[in-house]
Amino acid sequence: MTAIKPTTRQPRGDATRRQILDEAERIFADIGYAAARLDHVADAVGIRRPSIIYYFPGKQQLYEEVEADIFASMHAFVLNRTEGVGDPMARLLALLDAWLDFLVGRPTAARIIQRLIADSATHGDNPVRFSETALRDIEDVVTAGVASGQFGQVSAMVLLNTVAAGALHYVCNGRQLGPGRSYDPANPQQLAEFRAMMHRLAKAAVAPE
Amino acid sequence: MTAIKPTTRQPRGDATRRQILDEAERIFADIGYAAARLDHVADAVGIRRPSIIYYFPGKQQLYEEVEADIFASMHAFVLNRTEGVGDPMARLLALLDAWLDFLVGRPTAARIIQRLIADSATHGDNPVRFSETALRDIEDVVTAGVASGQFGQVSAMVLLNTVAAGALHYVCNGRQLGPGRSYDPANPQQLAEFRAMMHRLAKAAVAPE
Repeated sequence: MTAIKPTTRQPRGDATRRQILDEAERIFADIGYAAARLDHVADAVGIRRPSIIYYFPGKQQLYEEVEADIFASMHAFVLNRTEGVGDPMARLLALLDAWLDFLVGRPTAARIIQRLIADSATHGDNPVRFSETALRDIEDVVTAGVASGQFGQVSAMVLLNTVAAGALHYVCNGRQLGPGRSYDPANPQQLAEFRAMMHRLAKAAVAPE
Repeated sequence: MTAIKPTTRQPRGDATRRQILDEAERIFADIGYAAARLDHVADAVGIRRPSIIYYFPGKQQLYEEVEADIFASMHAFVLNRTEGVGDPMARLLALLDAWLDFLVGRPTAARIIQRLIADSATHGDNPVRFSETALRDIEDVVTAGVASGQFGQVSAMVLLNTVAAGALHYVCNGRQLGPGRSYDPANPQQLAEFRAMMHRLAKAAVAPE
C-alpha cells in the first residue's frame, strides 16, 4: 500500500471519504447516533465495512467528523453573511437569516442539531465541542447590542431557545404535521413568510422595555 | 392463570404496566425509538423480557402507548388551563403556559417530541396520530383570534414553529449548552424569565400589522 504514491491515490480516496461523510450525515439525521451502524453507511456508499474503517476508526469518530463539519460550515456561512455588518440589529437579523438559509439548504444538519438538543447525554465529554462557534456567534451580537443600548436586557440563551430555535422546527416540521399541513421549507413564498415572522420576533425580543 | 380472580391480580398488573410505561418513556427520550430495545426496558424495570410481552406485543406498540399517553396528558392539561378562557389572546397565552408547564414537569415528553420532529420518517403511517390534539389546540385559538380581528393574519404553523417551539428547546437545552451555560428549566426565576419572553413574542406574533 505504501508503495502507491499518495498523489495518485489521494483524489479517489478523498471522493470516497466525502461520500462516506455525506451518507453518514443522512443516516445520523434519519435515525440518530445510537441506532446508526457503520454497516448502514457502508451499504449506502456501496462499499464494505472495512473500507470505512480505513478512513474512520469507528462510529464515534465518524459522527464527530459529521458534527464538526456541520458547525464549521454553518459558522463559515455566518461569517460570510455578517462580514462588515456593524449595527447590532442588522447583525442579529443577518445571523438569523444565515442560520435559516443554511438549515433550509441542508435539512440533514437541522435534524442532527434537533437530535443533539433532544439527547440527555452527550456523545463525548463536551456537548458544545463543535457547536461552541454557533453559541459564540449569538452571544457576541447580543453582548454588542446590549452594550450599545440598542437591545434591552435580553440573554443569548433565551434568544437561542426562542427565535433561533424556530428555524430548526421550520425546516424539520415540513412533513411532520400530517396530511393537509405539509409544506416545503424551501418554497420561496413559505420561506419569506417564515423569515418575516422571524425578523418580527427578533425585533420584539431585543426591544428595550 | 385464569383461575386467579382478576380483582386480586389487577392491582399488581397495573403497577407493573405503569412501571414499564414510565421506564420506556425515559429510554425512548434518552436514546430514541430506533435504538431502544425491549431488553433495555425490562432491565430498567427489573423484570424479564417475556413479562413485557405479556403487556405489550412489541416495541412499536409500547412506543405508541407512550406517545399516546404524552399527548393525551398534555391535551388534558391544556383543557384544564383554558376552560372558560374566552378572550383569544388570554387563551393563546394560557395554551402556551400550559405547554411550557407540562413540558417543564415532564422533560422526557419534551425530548420525545423533539425526536418526533427530528425524524424524517414516522413510526406509523400517520405522524400526527397522537399529536393531532395539540395541533388542533393551537389552530382553534388562532382561528378564533383571526376571526375576531384581535390577531393579524398569522398561521398556526408559523406560530407553532416559533413561539411554541421555544418551550421544547428551553426544557431540553438545560444541560446541552456546555460548561458555564447550564441552567435548570424548573428554576422559578429562570422559568419566569423565559415565560415573560414567550408572552412577549406571542403578542408580537399575532399583533395586526
